[in-house]
Amino acid sequence: QFKIFHAVVSCSMPAEEIESVSLPVGWKSYISPEGRKYYVNTSTKGTTDVCICVCQLHGAMEMEESFDAEGSFDDVSCLSPQSPGSTSPARRQNKEKEIKETKITINCVTFPVSMSAPEQQLLKPSEWSYCDYFWADKRDPQGATVSGFEVLLQKQLKGKQMQKEMAEFIRERIKIEEEYAKNLSKLSMFPMAAQEEGTLGEAWAQLKKSLADEAEVHLKFSSKLQCEVEKPLLTFRGDNFKKDMKKYDHHIADLRKQLVSRYAAVEKARKALADRQKDLEVKTQQLEIKLSNKTEEDIKKARRKSTQAGDDLMRCVDLYNQGQSKWFEEMVTTSLELERLEVERVETIQQLLRQYTTLRHETDMFNQSTMEPVDQLLQSVDPAKDRELWVKEHKTGDLRPVDMDI
Amino acid sequence: QFKIFHAVVSCSMPAEEIESVSLPVGWKSYISPEGRKYYVNTSTKGTTDVCICVCQLHGAMEMEESFDAEGSFDDVSCLSPQSPGSTSPARRQNKEKEIKETKITINCVTFPVSMSAPEQQLLKPSEWSYCDYFWADKRDPQGATVSGFEVLLQKQLKGKQMQKEMAEFIRERIKIEEEYAKNLSKLSMFPMAAQEEGTLGEAWAQLKKSLADEAEVHLKFSSKLQCEVEKPLLTFRGDNFKKDMKKYDHHIADLRKQLVSRYAAVEKARKALADRQKDLEVKTQQLEIKLSNKTEEDIKKARRKSTQAGDDLMRCVDLYNQGQSKWFEEMVTTSLELERLEVERVETIQQLLRQYTTLRHETDMFNQSTMEPVDQLLQSVDPAKDRELWVKEHKTGDLRPVDMDI
Repeated sequence: QFKIFHAVVSCSMPAEEIESVSLPVGWKSYISPEGRKYYVNTSTKGTTDVCICVCQLHGAMEMEESFDAEGSFDDVSCLSPQSPGSTSPARRQNKEKEIKETKITINCVTFPVSMSAPEQQLLKPSEWSYCDYFWADKRDPQGATVSGFEVLLQKQLKGKQMQKEMAEFIRERIKIEEEYAKNLSKLSMFPMAAQEEGTLGEAWAQLKKSLADEAEVHLKFSSKLQCEVEKPLLTFRGDNFKKDMKKYDHHIADLRKQLVSRYAAVEKARKALADRQKDLEVKTQQLEIKLSNKTEEDIKKARRKSTQAGDDLMRCVDLYNQGQSKWFEEMVTTSLELERLEVERVETIQQLLRQYTTLRHETDMFNQSTMEPVDQLLQSVDPAKDRELWVKEHKTGDLRPVDMDI
Repeated sequence: QFKIFHAVVSCSMPAEEIESVSLPVGWKSYISPEGRKYYVNTSTKGTTDVCICVCQLHGAMEMEESFDAEGSFDDVSCLSPQSPGSTSPARRQNKEKEIKETKITINCVTFPVSMSAPEQQLLKPSEWSYCDYFWADKRDPQGATVSGFEVLLQKQLKGKQMQKEMAEFIRERIKIEEEYAKNLSKLSMFPMAAQEEGTLGEAWAQLKKSLADEAEVHLKFSSKLQCEVEKPLLTFRGDNFKKDMKKYDHHIADLRKQLVSRYAAVEKARKALADRQKDLEVKTQQLEIKLSNKTEEDIKKARRKSTQAGDDLMRCVDLYNQGQSKWFEEMVTTSLELERLEVERVETIQQLLRQYTTLRHETDMFNQSTMEPVDQLLQSVDPAKDRELWVKEHKTGDLRPVDMDI
């Protein structure tokens, strides 16, 4: 089942050329039961499922009904060389234009269809720029229409969410470090083996103290994590960011809405012109077969109205094109801004995460240095010295016993 | 108030020499009201408070009563040149000996008193060896007598307690490390910013993983702490240690007890001799003043008994001296063993604490290396690449809108 989105196609290529048209990726050609050739975009990634009917007689068609790919085309008001009398004056008018390219309007935005010259160059080749790849609408998994710009916007909002989550992660690390520091600090004050004396006692006391030094290192780490990583992650896009995104969103959406109403005006004007032309045709035919007593005045009037309708159409198409240009410019400007913001986001986060690893390196180094005084004192441990100190304090008497005399 | 510990002094120095005797540290000389000179050890650090009376007529005295430093000496059975008739035959006997040194028996152990030649050299000079400084008993704060050996033994038992407490400290550290590792490991699995993609997403994922790596480093640390520090601290003196200490304790104590009983025998023999001598003296006097009709037979009998008593005394003194020698040898051997054990203890603990610092150094280094892959991936963060990846996946269409034709 394909849904057709107000596809209007103007085609002026001869039948043979249609055969040899190289289709854009994802487009397939089918033949209807009536022998009509039509083209279907079967690509699902970010493109519209649309069925266009390219009339082999270069006619313009409107297809507003949905139909099965292999079903009947009875409802499709589509011209074909095999259907006599289906060549309308409107179609004939278009034929005279002899336009070289194929265009299609989807959701009120007009795109080229074929890949023939002049081929569109990317605005920023090799850059995979936002301004080059988000022109069409797409459908989300629920079936709703999503504009390309919307996709870009969501990406930015998700980026802000990512920042927030990274900051939460850092916060959790900070809590872990503070707990660790607290435990080390407590333990350093426990009285185990406090009675050890001498050089060994000194080394042991320093070893215990080193836990308090380690605790300090980890507290410093957690404190710097907060200032230099967590806080910036939370704040480098301020609250203004969401407001700015909303502004862009509304602005672009408004321009699209305007395009929709201008397109409606075009359609209306087109229909009015067709009616006027048909009226003129009928009246001319009637004159020729002397069907009525219409004077040349009536025909002149009909012709005037027809011309006026033609002018109206031109004006509407003009306004539509202006509106589309405006939207186009805004799209390019804004999508490039979003692109810049995304580069900034990635680079800022890269910076902050590098700061994280720097702080980790620092911490490990400071931690190592807490061992230095311990190593030194352990080096100085001297059992002989400790014995001297202890003996001096605790000796009971150095006179050795002698034989008793009688 | 000084307590006197069965001090028996034999002295054979002329009065003048006594005056010029250089006293050991802490000894002071006093003159009693009767004009007797006596010497008091006022040192409180590990020496006995004893009052000895050195008779200026080189007599031996027993002082068993306690008295005030400035009080009367009426109770002291102490000879002096001023007290006629107090020169007993026993004392005369000692006088004949003309022994050069002054000795004192305290708690049944016999020591030299003066510092005169031949001066005692330390058994192990400059080493502050246990075998040189723990000969005398001391008094603990509660007033109980403690032998020098007991002090050495307590030191060893305390050393075992110190090990145990150090091991407890290491155990607490192990618990802290395991807690820290557990927290880091948990956090590394939290889903924060899991949706970040591209090169930034990779770097972020590695950063999160690095916490699990850190956790492993700390777990390894705690595991090695247990094997290489805690366990050895707990086990390097086995349970046999306390048994060995008890054995030494009992053995040395037994030898002291033996000395006490042999000393009692000496005292008893000495008294018996004095009695026999007095008996002989009385009987001889009686013969001279024809006080009784005692025959020469009686005197011969009395003389024989006196000689026998003299032999008994010699035997007892011999046994005593042998007993003291035995104790002396055991003291030297065992105290040197305790000294060796203490050196071993200090060196072993030094070793184990060095192992602790080595493990800490290792840990900090391993911890640093967990940052390497993170640093590398952060280096590779590329906003342009990430844009390309993301655009390729999420683009909606690269055909730009064109003007609608009329």
